[in-house]
Amino acid sequence: MKLIKLNASVTASNDRDADELRAKMKADGRLLVNVMSSAGSGKTTLLSRIIRDLPQVRIGVMEADIESEVDADRIEALGAKAIQAHTSGMCHMDAGMTAAAYEALEPGDAELIFLENVGNLICPAEYDTGAGLKLMILSVPEGDDKPLKYPLMFQESDALVISKIDALPYFDFDLEKCKERARKLNPSIQIFPISAKTGEGMEALEAWILEALNNWKAPE
Amino acid sequence: MKLIKLNASVTASNDRDADELRAKMKADGRLLVNVMSSAGSGKTTLLSRIIRDLPQVRIGVMEADIESEVDADRIEALGAKAIQAHTSGMCHMDAGMTAAAYEALEPGDAELIFLENVGNLICPAEYDTGAGLKLMILSVPEGDDKPLKYPLMFQESDALVISKIDALPYFDFDLEKCKERARKLNPSIQIFPISAKTGEGMEALEAWILEALNNWKAPE
Repeated sequence: MKLIKLNASVTASNDRDADELRAKMKADGRLLVNVMSSAGSGKTTLLSRIIRDLPQVRIGVMEADIESEVDADRIEALGAKAIQAHTSGMCHMDAGMTAAAYEALEPGDAELIFLENVGNLICPAEYDTGAGLKLMILSVPEGDDKPLKYPLMFQESDALVISKIDALPYFDFDLEKCKERARKLNPSIQIFPISAKTGEGMEALEAWILEALNNWKAPE
Repeated sequence: MKLIKLNASVTASNDRDADELRAKMKADGRLLVNVMSSAGSGKTTLLSRIIRDLPQVRIGVMEADIESEVDADRIEALGAKAIQAHTSGMCHMDAGMTAAAYEALEPGDAELIFLENVGNLICPAEYDTGAGLKLMILSVPEGDDKPLKYPLMFQESDALVISKIDALPYFDFDLEKCKERARKLNPSIQIFPISAKTGEGMEALEAWILEALNNWKAPE
């Protein structure tokens, strides 16, 4: 398993770096998906499920964490291309860090690249990484009030995955209220309630990702 | 419910500010407890339980969030003194922000003051707020691998509360492995597995907090 140590970018403009990386990804015919959530919302479990469910898609994963290699090890065990990036204590990935991780990934023929951002519902939302698609996860045990408290993440994301819905019977989580709160912040957000454990809801999410990939690769 | 808007402190030394606030708290006979965790780990639920269980202790709570007043409203409904602090987008509280919130709280005769930090397992661990006691929460649904990924929070905390243990049957969480990983990072950390819902484990945690309060108030 390949490990890269990253430091915060020193360039003046993260947005410019992000636009450059996005253009490069587009030219390479690869869609980068920035996956963001709190620690323990099920990012790696979701990605593992997608890799297993979509054998026809060549997938690469960049795992960003402050420490440990457990996530990249899990992804590699499934046969997908993976790299572990350590952020030198940083609580988020910026565009320069993402570009460096992408280079280290050596994606080969992978066309769908996931960036599993650092587990944090706040700071990652503030940095454009150059991704073509932004996906956030909120897990049922975290509570349906999170849109009220961390609005930027919901505003910035193209899709909200509500994970661990198999645990709905054990938690006081109002699915409709959560959706309503998220849509109030971001009327165009796509919402996918799923359980990576039982597979419920995965088909709709995966169809949406595949459509985004096809649109991304289509000539303009 | 009182709301204060805070900005990052402009002073040069957060550590000096923190030491000053700690000394002031000591002189006032008040113990400040910095409560840290990811979003949705159950900080407010834990504090609500402690307030209900310890009517003999005068408690004040400073709720720090990027937005919303839901937490302070919940605490006030229990009759405790509470203030909501908004962090102007900041992902953590520093000592100057904590001192400003403390002043706005007007704690009166409260002797045990909780700071509910912003929901984030990373950044709050990097800032001394001036608290006399640091308590972190990790909830069962987040997973037992979190000490591997976010070591600083475990190293910095005096106590680890493992919350939502009523959900243990539904999640793949190894309690002993989690304790072992936490103690490897911080051999002196106190560990309290609890359920604020069923009350399991609360007595030991509350006894430990009361002892810390008595020690704090005892003349040296």
